[in-house]
Order: sequence, then C-alpha cells, then structure tokens
Amino acid sequence: MDVLRTVVSAQGVMAKLQKPDLAQAVAYSAAFPTILAAFHRQRQGKDWVSPRADLGHAANYLYMLTGEEPGPEKVQALNSYLVLLADHGMNASTFTARVIASTDSDLVSCLVGAVGALKGPAHGGAPSHVMEQLEKIGTPENAERWGREALERKERFMGFGHRVYRTYDPRAKILKAMCERLNPTFYALASKWEEVALRLLQERHPERPQATNVEFYSAGVLQAVGLPTDFFPATFGISRAAGWTAHVLEQVSDNRLIRPQSEYVGPEPKKPVPLGQR
Amino acid sequence: MDVLRTVVSAQGVMAKLQKPDLAQAVAYSAAFPTILAAFHRQRQGKDWVSPRADLGHAANYLYMLTGEEPGPEKVQALNSYLVLLADHGMNASTFTARVIASTDSDLVSCLVGAVGALKGPAHGGAPSHVMEQLEKIGTPENAERWGREALERKERFMGFGHRVYRTYDPRAKILKAMCERLNPTFYALASKWEEVALRLLQERHPERPQATNVEFYSAGVLQAVGLPTDFFPATFGISRAAGWTAHVLEQVSDNRLIRPQSEYVGPEPKKPVPLGQR
Repeated sequence: MDVLRTVVSAQGVMAKLQKPDLAQAVAYSAAFPTILAAFHRQRQGKDWVSPRADLGHAANYLYMLTGEEPGPEKVQALNSYLVLLADHGMNASTFTARVIASTDSDLVSCLVGAVGALKGPAHGGAPSHVMEQLEKIGTPENAERWGREALERKERFMGFGHRVYRTYDPRAKILKAMCERLNPTFYALASKWEEVALRLLQERHPERPQATNVEFYSAGVLQAVGLPTDFFPATFGISRAAGWTAHVLEQVSDNRLIRPQSEYVGPEPKKPVPLGQR
Repeated sequence: MDVLRTVVSAQGVMAKLQKPDLAQAVAYSAAFPTILAAFHRQRQGKDWVSPRADLGHAANYLYMLTGEEPGPEKVQALNSYLVLLADHGMNASTFTARVIASTDSDLVSCLVGAVGALKGPAHGGAPSHVMEQLEKIGTPENAERWGREALERKERFMGFGHRVYRTYDPRAKILKAMCERLNPTFYALASKWEEVALRLLQERHPERPQATNVEFYSAGVLQAVGLPTDFFPATFGISRAAGWTAHVLEQVSDNRLIRPQSEYVGPEPKKPVPLGQR
C-alpha cells in the first residue's frame, strides 16, 4: 500500500507523453544494469554501488554487482555477449516494443512491455534453464543416459532449436569459442552434452532439423563473468535494451499504428432460440 | 528509492510464472477500477474507499471514486460503456497482450504491456481530447468558425476516423443516443459539432471517407456519469481489461510464439573500403 501511495503522489495521470529520442534510449539502456545491480545488492543485504563514469556499460554492470572493478577479460567477454544478443529482428519482445511505440506511447511503456515479453520462457528464459539441465546431467559421462531418460519423460532439451534458424546459430559459434577459453569446466560438460543432444534429437525427430541456439553457450559465458544463474534472463534484457530502443526509434521515425486484422476460424455462430420458444 | 527497496524485497527474480487462467482474469479486471479509484482519492487527499461485494463492476468503480452509492441510471450508462468498449478485435493494446502471452509470460506482464499501448494518443487517448476540443469550441454557434480555423491550422478533429470502420461506428450510435438522454448540454454542442466537422472533412478531403468514431460520444457518457476528464483514457482501460484478459486466455489455449519476419527495404549496404586503402 505504501508503494502505491508513493507512486501515485509522484505523478499525474495525463502527463504529456514525450516522443522517444536517442538521449532517452541511451539513458534507459544505461538504467537496466543499474537497477538490476541494485536489486542484486539489495537481496544480499548489501549497499548499492553507484556507476562510475570512467567505466563502460559492461564493466559498470559487473562493478555495480560486486563493488570491485572487473578484469579486462571478463569485461570483454560480457561486452561481446551484450553486442551479440542486442538485436535479432522482429523477435517477440522487440515486436512488442514496436507495437506499443506505434500508438505514440512513450519509451518507458515500450521497454516495460518488452521486458514482460522477454520474461516468457519461450523467449528469454532459456539460458537459466540450460544451466539447470547441465546441473542435472552433472558429468560428461552421464550425458547419454540423462538425455535418453529425458526424452522418455518428454522433457525438452533447452538451448536447441530456433524459430528462424534451421542451422547452427552463428552467434552460438562465437559464444562456444568464448566458453572454451573462459569456462573450461562448463565447456567440457556442455560440448559433450551438445553432441549427445543433437544426435538424440536427430534420431528421435529426423524430420525436424534441430541446432544449437544462442542460449546454449550464453549460459557458460554469463557464468564465466560471475553472474548468478537467476540473472541470466535479466542480463539478456540488458543486452536487448539497446535493440529495443533502436527499434522504437526506427518505428517512430515513420510511424503507423500496428493493428493487424484477425480472421475468425471457429465454428459457425449458434442460432439463438427466442425466449418464448425455450 | 524507498519504492524500489519495497518492491525488490517483496519478490524474487525467477518466480515461477503462472499460466493465465480465468480466476486471474477476473481478479485483475476487478483490480483496475480499485487501483484507479484509490489513485483519484489519493490525489484529492481523501481516504480510499474499499469495494463492496454487493455492488457490480460499474457501480463499484463509481462508489470507490466518490464514496457514495451511485444511482441506477449512472450505473447502467457506465455499464453499457464498459461492455461496448471491452473488445475490438486485434487493436494495438490487445495485440500487445497477445504477443506477450505468446512467450508464455504471465497475465500481469500482458496487461501492463497493453496499458502501455493504450496510453498512446493514437490508441486510447482520444476521449479526453474530444472533450478538450469541445471546450475550445464552446457553443454550437461557434462550431463552424472554429472548425474552419482549426483546418487552416492543420489541427486534427478528435473522435473522427478509424483504422477499421469507413462508416459510422456502430458503437458510436448507441453512445450518441445515451448522450442525448443523459447529457443534453454536451449533446447540444457535440451533435452540432459532429455535423459541422463531418461536412468540413468531406469538403476538404472528399477522397477520404471520415465518420464519427466510438470515442466521440464516449466523452459525453463518461462526463455524464461523473468521471473527471483525465480519467477517460484509464476508464477505457477498465473496460478493455475484460477484452485483454479474454484474448490472452484464447492465446494461451493454443499458443504459438508471435514472431513476425521483417523485410529490409532500405538502401543497399555500403561496400567497406579495406583499412589499407583508406
């Protein structure tokens, strides 16, 4: 209740909406790691760490999480991850941001909507689930047995398959090489599991081409830079904030309301029986 | 800062997402008027009024806003408005909710995204703007002069035109009849302005069929039931919450990720000049 009281006293209902611009895009993208790091500090009972003007985007995120200046290898790895994942066409969260922008709404509304879409396990939740499955598998030797049993249980293998790619996700290749260098323990298990999983999927569904997607090796990179597993999806959001804001700026530069038509394909309407004949 | 502290301590990041269901749809639709009425009371420095179990959705909204039980005529008028505006195919906010639902996200995320889209002036902002224009016009006798001057200023007439309808919006007809009965002062001005505006638009753009849309007479009905002008868009949201939640339930009943392809139509990529030749 106190939360609501504070929020409602802070602003009016009909505040004039500002048209999204580049300055907002930069400021809001920078706000993502700041808010997330504050959240992580808070739940650990630690004080928040303010960003430093002399550190870049990736370095500041790690710095605000830990309170320590990260080494160049971690910064470079996280930076590569952030760049690789920042944009990917009309994915569901980006498309959400564009639909909201198309009504001439403000950038905060676009980003909040996008975060809500990214939250869905079918979109942004996979990297954490890759890690959970690898923890269950435990060792490279156990991969074959676990995979066969999981298939029997009709459990989905996380980090494989993509709506757009039918072949090896080009981003996954780069992340795989980074994992091999930065996170050898993860790599030993993950690369064995990848080999087994692709073979089992091919055996089970030869008609359905499956390939490793970007989320599979994302998990190993994010672990290597020291992020907690439950922060993987939110870190994906930090990356995508750059893509979301860029798409919104493109949308508003030549805006038209996104309002698709739908076609009714259900059963014919029932004929109502007049009250007197019931 | 205190707001964030309260929010972050209240919940975890990776809370298991609940699949949207009918009980949630009902509860969240009921929360809209409760939250909005609390906001209105708060900004007036008044105590909040709790909903009453013996009152319906429309009656409770008016009751929580004013603290007084509304008469049956107002309740019936607001109820008709809420029913008429609840759904309208794949409008931008409903579509936003469905895109978010398609990622298997939760119902709160779908509704928050939809509110962000409805906030855009090209979608939900019009009823307030109709009222603002009518205030500027002032009297029926002034409609012709104001309209001609507004056209010279290239000002848009609010409450006319619709992406889907090229003819008189069937919902506007019902609201118009309600205005005539419940809000004769508004009706005298609005019906005269409607006649003038449609004639001027026809003169100016004979190639572009324009018709009165649902928002034009919505303003008069919402004023008649005693709502403040700046609450018209939010009251549209109360109505549409029923449509949004129904669409989300339909989406998740046979879900597939909404992820359109986009086609690049910009200029050809520039040919990079190798560093050594620059």
